[in-house]
Amino acid sequence: MENILSRYSDLKDLKAMNMEELNTLAENIRELIIEVVSKNGGHLASNLGVVELTIALHKVFNGDLDKIIWDVGHQSYVHKILTGRKESFHTIRTHKGISGFPKRKESKYDIFETGHSSTSISAALGYALSRDIIGEKHNVISVIGDGAMTAGMAFEALNHAGDTGTDLIVVLNDNEMSISQNVGGLSQYLNRIRTAPTYFKVKEDVEAILNSIPGIGKQVFKTAERAKDSIKYFLVPGMFFEELGFKYLGPIDGHNINDMIRELERAKKVKGPVLVHVITKKGKGYKPAEEHPDKFHGSSPFNIDTGKPINISIEPSYSDILGDTLINMANKDNRIVAITAAMPEGTGLSKYKEIHKDRFFDVGIAEQHGVTLAAGLASNNLKPYFVVYSTFLQRGYDQVLHDVCIQNLPVVFAIDRAGLVGDDGETHHGVFDLSYLSHIPNITIMAPRDKSEFIQMLEFSKDYNGPLAIRYPRGNCYDYIEENNRTDIELGKSEVLVKGKDIAIIAIGGMVEKAYKVTEELKRQGRSVTLINGRFVKPLDEDLIKKVSNEHSLIVTLEDNVKTGGFGSLINDILVQSNYRGEILNIALPDIFIEHGKVNLLFKQYNMDVEGILNRISEKIK
Amino acid sequence: MENILSRYSDLKDLKAMNMEELNTLAENIRELIIEVVSKNGGHLASNLGVVELTIALHKVFNGDLDKIIWDVGHQSYVHKILTGRKESFHTIRTHKGISGFPKRKESKYDIFETGHSSTSISAALGYALSRDIIGEKHNVISVIGDGAMTAGMAFEALNHAGDTGTDLIVVLNDNEMSISQNVGGLSQYLNRIRTAPTYFKVKEDVEAILNSIPGIGKQVFKTAERAKDSIKYFLVPGMFFEELGFKYLGPIDGHNINDMIRELERAKKVKGPVLVHVITKKGKGYKPAEEHPDKFHGSSPFNIDTGKPINISIEPSYSDILGDTLINMANKDNRIVAITAAMPEGTGLSKYKEIHKDRFFDVGIAEQHGVTLAAGLASNNLKPYFVVYSTFLQRGYDQVLHDVCIQNLPVVFAIDRAGLVGDDGETHHGVFDLSYLSHIPNITIMAPRDKSEFIQMLEFSKDYNGPLAIRYPRGNCYDYIEENNRTDIELGKSEVLVKGKDIAIIAIGGMVEKAYKVTEELKRQGRSVTLINGRFVKPLDEDLIKKVSNEHSLIVTLEDNVKTGGFGSLINDILVQSNYRGEILNIALPDIFIEHGKVNLLFKQYNMDVEGILNRISEKIK
Repeated sequence: MENILSRYSDLKDLKAMNMEELNTLAENIRELIIEVVSKNGGHLASNLGVVELTIALHKVFNGDLDKIIWDVGHQSYVHKILTGRKESFHTIRTHKGISGFPKRKESKYDIFETGHSSTSISAALGYALSRDIIGEKHNVISVIGDGAMTAGMAFEALNHAGDTGTDLIVVLNDNEMSISQNVGGLSQYLNRIRTAPTYFKVKEDVEAILNSIPGIGKQVFKTAERAKDSIKYFLVPGMFFEELGFKYLGPIDGHNINDMIRELERAKKVKGPVLVHVITKKGKGYKPAEEHPDKFHGSSPFNIDTGKPINISIEPSYSDILGDTLINMANKDNRIVAITAAMPEGTGLSKYKEIHKDRFFDVGIAEQHGVTLAAGLASNNLKPYFVVYSTFLQRGYDQVLHDVCIQNLPVVFAIDRAGLVGDDGETHHGVFDLSYLSHIPNITIMAPRDKSEFIQMLEFSKDYNGPLAIRYPRGNCYDYIEENNRTDIELGKSEVLVKGKDIAIIAIGGMVEKAYKVTEELKRQGRSVTLINGRFVKPLDEDLIKKVSNEHSLIVTLEDNVKTGGFGSLINDILVQSNYRGEILNIALPDIFIEHGKVNLLFKQYNMDVEGILNRISEKIK
Repeated sequence: MENILSRYSDLKDLKAMNMEELNTLAENIRELIIEVVSKNGGHLASNLGVVELTIALHKVFNGDLDKIIWDVGHQSYVHKILTGRKESFHTIRTHKGISGFPKRKESKYDIFETGHSSTSISAALGYALSRDIIGEKHNVISVIGDGAMTAGMAFEALNHAGDTGTDLIVVLNDNEMSISQNVGGLSQYLNRIRTAPTYFKVKEDVEAILNSIPGIGKQVFKTAERAKDSIKYFLVPGMFFEELGFKYLGPIDGHNINDMIRELERAKKVKGPVLVHVITKKGKGYKPAEEHPDKFHGSSPFNIDTGKPINISIEPSYSDILGDTLINMANKDNRIVAITAAMPEGTGLSKYKEIHKDRFFDVGIAEQHGVTLAAGLASNNLKPYFVVYSTFLQRGYDQVLHDVCIQNLPVVFAIDRAGLVGDDGETHHGVFDLSYLSHIPNITIMAPRDKSEFIQMLEFSKDYNGPLAIRYPRGNCYDYIEENNRTDIELGKSEVLVKGKDIAIIAIGGMVEKAYKVTEELKRQGRSVTLINGRFVKPLDEDLIKKVSNEHSLIVTLEDNVKTGGFGSLINDILVQSNYRGEILNIALPDIFIEHGKVNLLFKQYNMDVEGILNRISEKIK
């Protein structure tokens, strides 16, 4: 096959290509993506699914003028390759390399940054309405998946857009999945359109029949005053969207560039909001990804020939331990229910889902609903665990406060991917949860130092009668504290791991291991150090902190959360009340959005690896 | 008219009544509500609209077993009167009296607490699914308005409920309004059902026609494989809901008890989720409220004969000043756009809406979309102001962080009703905003001490090129600092209002006035006091705080936000770094949910009125 991509430079080249060349280009891009993602990891399946769609979009629209917004944004690889980042594409998702998501500082063609799901219609509507106000002329296009469509804010935006009547093109990229399998009435509806075109496409036939029988057409119109509109239901697929004020085009084969160009050209001419329904296949063109799109959603490096991951960890992750422990607990306690928002695999619930399917709910990409559903379940005496990534629980902040905590309901938030998450960057780091939760009355917040404590906390949570958050990091879950040095959990009590004087380090969660190593090193240097595993962020162990403040001249707090409203800040509030007169060093993530890169690199960069922490403490005590 | 209500005791009485008695009861309840709300203030229009609906619900369902959840909950007065709170009803919304919202501690018939919009379907689904798991038998009913239906989480819940197929009754209380006029494609759709029943109700006619012509029915069925379903579109109203997996019943006259009882009985027998569409009139039965339902949404005390409010304030509110200033600014600057989430009146935008209607967007009850729409507008060089209550912006927390602040976009959040709001209580106090915003990178947060500074801040915001929040309280907006003592605004700089030594009070926003009075009193007592108007919560005036910490032995921080992550906590973080050795007193709201009551009473209760603040300072310095 010819390699057209090798001589591709910019969008002008695309405009000049004929259909055959476009199809060849698609294959070239597919190969490049498979090659790079097999090395760097990344969102393979979703990008392979939109190769032709992206080419068609850039063929039809004017990249320098029109505004294309990629919902979630992890499917923007093809767009990046076509818009000036072909040469840097091999650096994708690496530290200091290009991002796996649209970034404005990377390219003028990335006009709006995304990461969390379902924001693109709102943003696109903002662009469209501003265009109308300013008097500009250009097209605005949101590209959104069917999974993202289940989130409430997508509906809010559709509802508002339909009302405004402004020119706006929503491309529904329907791959029959969100991250795992899709959920909900809307999904079933889309499925009906996909699988039974005749269900909708009877327009010509019905019209022919009605016309063939003298009088019948008129008779119907006479009966129903506005039957002309009403009859649309018979004829028009996408009635759901039409009711919200959109014109519906589709469904279209999302791997047929020709068809898509034709329909997108049509969409361009439509007055008012239009939804173009495109059917794509996740992982298209790479067999292992077509067969297991969930495994190739966010993929680690893999062998291209076999599709098997390289460097398989033998150690379980925190997510695995969550899943296993929850199964064990649910075996014994039939009040336990697990909830996920479209993430059964990522959150470690795949096995649970099979074993306790009656007590498992995948609510779709719908964190708001997920939290309040949990509140409803808890109100009727069940024990719900909402297992969710830290960054995505941000969507449910109001519901945590308003529906769970005001009523003081026993919902457990198992908060995965807390702290730095690595390659996904700014939009995905879980570094705000302590701050957005700690000020909410009635909530209890814990973070485990390691595997054994994580299991202890989950056991503790089972009989705890109030809102409880357990936050834990991405990555491997193991033990490093000797068994006889571990202690039982008691509400609001911290754990003293090393006893000394002079310096006290109070660390939380995944940072305790680093603190442990720092303590060992400081001891080697002849320092006397106390190491405390905070265990509870709320309620804090005030008694211990006050005691420690009397006995040490330097208190170091350590957390993988931003400082404001976080663990160190909460400790400061106690220290200033207790008139502590020593030094305080708060080590936390800085007040900026942290870029993408391997977690260890990022910790190093922000002086939060063992060496960096040691240096900062040494500076204080020199 | 007979007074049946006077001898009404509990739901058993309702069960025994005939239709005539029920209608009389409705009138009695209406009178009681008008009488009490005319004195206490409250949500008049929405309660008058659901008198018959509430009676029908309690007639059909078993209050001791079935679960009725009131969305938003401000329309639960009739329910309260019918379920044991007739005698205490005159205390509604008064401090220590019954709440204007469902409260579990108040009654076993209040099974789920509400306040913010659109949570009820999620909670009801939680009840329904838990019932299925436990093996209980009862009905679960969510009563939700058409306005609340525009919020994303209602859609998320409908989507999930439709998928589960569980028995669940959603009563859509369609009064053609949310708080002001309704917004969106969904609203237009409901309007089509309401206004043109023939648009949908052609079932019998069409069937007759099809049957009258030999072969035609069969021919259609042959053409379209599943035309039997397809033909439903012709026939069934509420197709939108049917597509999501609900059976639709309605529309029904929501003031006809007989009709509602019949349809609710039908709904009870339906397998799976069912939506009952009830048409009601806000303010029904009280002419001034029927004519101006928006004015009687959250009403202050009024004269029953005239409908005119008692005790009209001649002073403008902060909302009024916001509206007037924004009009002036928009007159001169055509980049300015205002956004509200269904609250043009409450936020003071009514006039703006008329004058600058091209640059005004009411997005419906859709704070998530509202924030990201603003981000989209700002991306294209406009200057959006999202004017929103503090408690409702909680819904947009993720969007503030993810869509506005990561991209550092110049969106202004004009945050009304910050601090204590009074009679609405727990679910409505705006006492968390400093905490849920201050830890977000890139955001700037301000709070004005009074009217002149509020206007200065709005002017300042116009040319500020980044995310900016201005939070201001409910209530009157006036000046109390002499003109020549006021200073210009400079980014990140506080204002020294009184210069002294010994004690430094650093207060923010609405609390500066109290601090001013406290300062006057302390000076009278011979103390030397510095008073600082914080002005900026972020970035803090670190230089000034450090300077103050060198010159004073007691620093008092004062804010109407919870302490954690708030103004005082941020100052503590600086003080511990600067090795301040004096005393610190953080005065903030406690770590509990604050009940309802007049703002002044609540401040007194939590020792945050002038006297309480003085006492707490005196204790520190005695």
